[in-house]
Amino acid sequence: MNILIIGGGGVVGQKLAQALVKSGMLRGQAITRITLADVVDPAPVAAPFEIRTMICDIADPASVAECVSKDTDVIYLLAAIVSAHAEEDFDAGMKINLFGTYNVLERCRALGTSPVVVFTSSIAVYGGEAQDPLGDHSFPNPQTSYGMQKAAGELFINDYSRKGFIDGRAFRLPTISVRPGKPNRAASSFMSSILREPLNGQEAVCPVDADFLHYYLSPRRCVDNLIKGAELAGDDIGQNRVMQMPGTSLSIKQLIDAMTAVAGPEPAKLIRWDAQPDIKKIVSGWRWDIHADKAERLGLKADDSFEDNIRYYLEDDKPAA
Amino acid sequence: MNILIIGGGGVVGQKLAQALVKSGMLRGQAITRITLADVVDPAPVAAPFEIRTMICDIADPASVAECVSKDTDVIYLLAAIVSAHAEEDFDAGMKINLFGTYNVLERCRALGTSPVVVFTSSIAVYGGEAQDPLGDHSFPNPQTSYGMQKAAGELFINDYSRKGFIDGRAFRLPTISVRPGKPNRAASSFMSSILREPLNGQEAVCPVDADFLHYYLSPRRCVDNLIKGAELAGDDIGQNRVMQMPGTSLSIKQLIDAMTAVAGPEPAKLIRWDAQPDIKKIVSGWRWDIHADKAERLGLKADDSFEDNIRYYLEDDKPAA
Ligand SMILES: NC(=O)c1ccc[n+]([C@@H]2O[C@H](COP(=O)([O-])OP(=O)(O)OC[C@H]3O[C@@H](n4cnc5c(N)ncnc54)[C@H](O)[C@@H]3O)[C@@H](O)[C@H]2O)c1
Ligand SMILES: NC(=O)c1ccc[n+]([C@@H]2O[C@H](COP(=O)([O-])OP(=O)(O)OC[C@H]3O[C@@H](n4cnc5c(N)ncnc54)[C@H](O)[C@@H]3O)[C@@H](O)[C@H]2O)c1
Repeated sequence: MNILIIGGGGVVGQKLAQALVKSGMLRGQAITRITLADVVDPAPVAAPFEIRTMICDIADPASVAECVSKDTDVIYLLAAIVSAHAEEDFDAGMKINLFGTYNVLERCRALGTSPVVVFTSSIAVYGGEAQDPLGDHSFPNPQTSYGMQKAAGELFINDYSRKGFIDGRAFRLPTISVRPGKPNRAASSFMSSILREPLNGQEAVCPVDADFLHYYLSPRRCVDNLIKGAELAGDDIGQNRVMQMPGTSLSIKQLIDAMTAVAGPEPAKLIRWDAQPDIKKIVSGWRWDIHADKAERLGLKADDSFEDNIRYYLEDDKPAA
Repeated sequence: MNILIIGGGGVVGQKLAQALVKSGMLRGQAITRITLADVVDPAPVAAPFEIRTMICDIADPASVAECVSKDTDVIYLLAAIVSAHAEEDFDAGMKINLFGTYNVLERCRALGTSPVVVFTSSIAVYGGEAQDPLGDHSFPNPQTSYGMQKAAGELFINDYSRKGFIDGRAFRLPTISVRPGKPNRAASSFMSSILREPLNGQEAVCPVDADFLHYYLSPRRCVDNLIKGAELAGDDIGQNRVMQMPGTSLSIKQLIDAMTAVAGPEPAKLIRWDAQPDIKKIVSGWRWDIHADKAERLGLKADDSFEDNIRYYLEDDKPAA
């Protein structure tokens, strides 16, 4: 079992690689190699089998051809630029998120090997006139270019699978929280930083109100679901290879209460409430009444409680003092 | 008012040009020029103002740049290859239907003139796991590459409009019947030929059963709707610039009964019933329980009865004996 993670230097990619190493198996077979490919030199992970790292720019078909080869069994296609970045730089979003996805799928088609391709879409495909509640069969009316590019990627995954060019499956990821590392260019960045920074003993700014609702999943559970997602039989998924990944709808207050329940009252005091109209404007168009019927039926799971998300952060990611 | 019809040599493009000439106005302004652009040299139409014809291949950005210019006010983007063709030749479908659409939109974006763009999508975007009844807000789960390419085009139209690069609107056309001319490579070709050929005194083959249901619109009403579609104010359309164009769900028997009501009993006798499993297989995945709520609210219309469709064919298209 030879696995390629494109975007393997990113937050999800690194955690996925670690989880795959821990399991040692995928789709009932022993893993023999994991390749981490990323436009930024990806960090290797320790493993009892071969780990390759390589530079790959999905916007460049020749670069894609170097990392996707005849012996690639499973491809995780995680490489993307995030919402705020794609919104500011329309060309970059199209080049990477849309044509990059196409380049990877075209490479698979050219090889004729029909690999399993796991594509990470996003709840950013929802919006506009799509009616609540949202889920597997909601009309995608994205209100960001990032969301549009993900929705187009979903269409590609479905059609390339229907044609037998790949054995694809796409998951609309909830917002991952608590996301480790530094704030990024996603407008959702604060949804992790108001927890992560205080848990690290640092101040953080909350730009929205405490009753702001959103749809979340921990990185650990996300990675479990991506592994389970690769293991699903195509026939069990059906004609729509795209599904919502399970998450939980919570208010900012509920996130903070969970932090307090796990880590005591101090972290919450480090949150500065500073309403930011520009961020509020973007995220107020986002949707939270989301259901993941198909994925739940197929065995993917939301977190049991947000207190788990806090615990996972402390166990997996909190930097040593 | 300077209008460009890309795909202006096709059936809808030619009829649209004629209807625009007849009206002389669009969006409250006198038409000063119509340009018909097509990869096959388009036939000119007679008009009291300038008519240009030109060769344009939307798959080629340089060719697109030659026909879309700073003074283009309204673009009808009709150029496409049809379902069976795009299904056989995946590359051609991607190159023309998907990247061709992108090339036209990119040219508009580069010009910075935000022209009105009317895009013809199709009921082929419906399928798979999308639930009946279908309409403006149904999940697009196309079961042909043509439908996938149209659904991706819809996403582009919405996002380019949201960004202000164009003032777009996309209409999911019902199957046009009675379509003039010769059978084409669409699997739906018989839905016109079982009427057109008999009305011309020729034999035709019906490859499906008489109770086969489908969703139809006459070419004349389609063109009226495309004109009305260009005249809608963007703000009245809302966040979803894509809508179903009104049509009527009818059985093959109802089509033939309408033909008999208008043209007497002879034409129906020229239909040979010859079940064709390959065609049946394709069209059995097609959907007919379709509603056009938004378009109807905005003043677009279905035919009053299929007898009109037969009459329009006899008045507008039947070749002189
Ligand atoms: N984290 C979330 O909350 C969330 C939510 C919804 C969807 N997603 C999606 O999940 C995936 C992984 O997310 P993440 O949080 O790990 O993001 P991340 O930004 O940490 O990782 C993405 C990786 O892709 C790489 N990349 C960017 N452009 C590339 C290119 N041209 N070629 C190759 N690699 C390139 C980046 O260098 C980065 O390492 C992404 O597709 C993202 O859109 C994430
Ligand atoms: N007729 C229908 O039943 C129906 C139904 C749904 C959607 N549509 C859509 O409506 C539009 C018009 O349909 P039509 O019936 O007039 O089809 P048509 O085939 O008669 O016309 C399409 C025209 O596009 C031109 N074309 C093809 N490739 C091109 C390229 N690379 N560059 C420039 N021009 C190119 C063709 O030469 C042709 O003249 C199409 O987009 C079609 O997909 C039609």
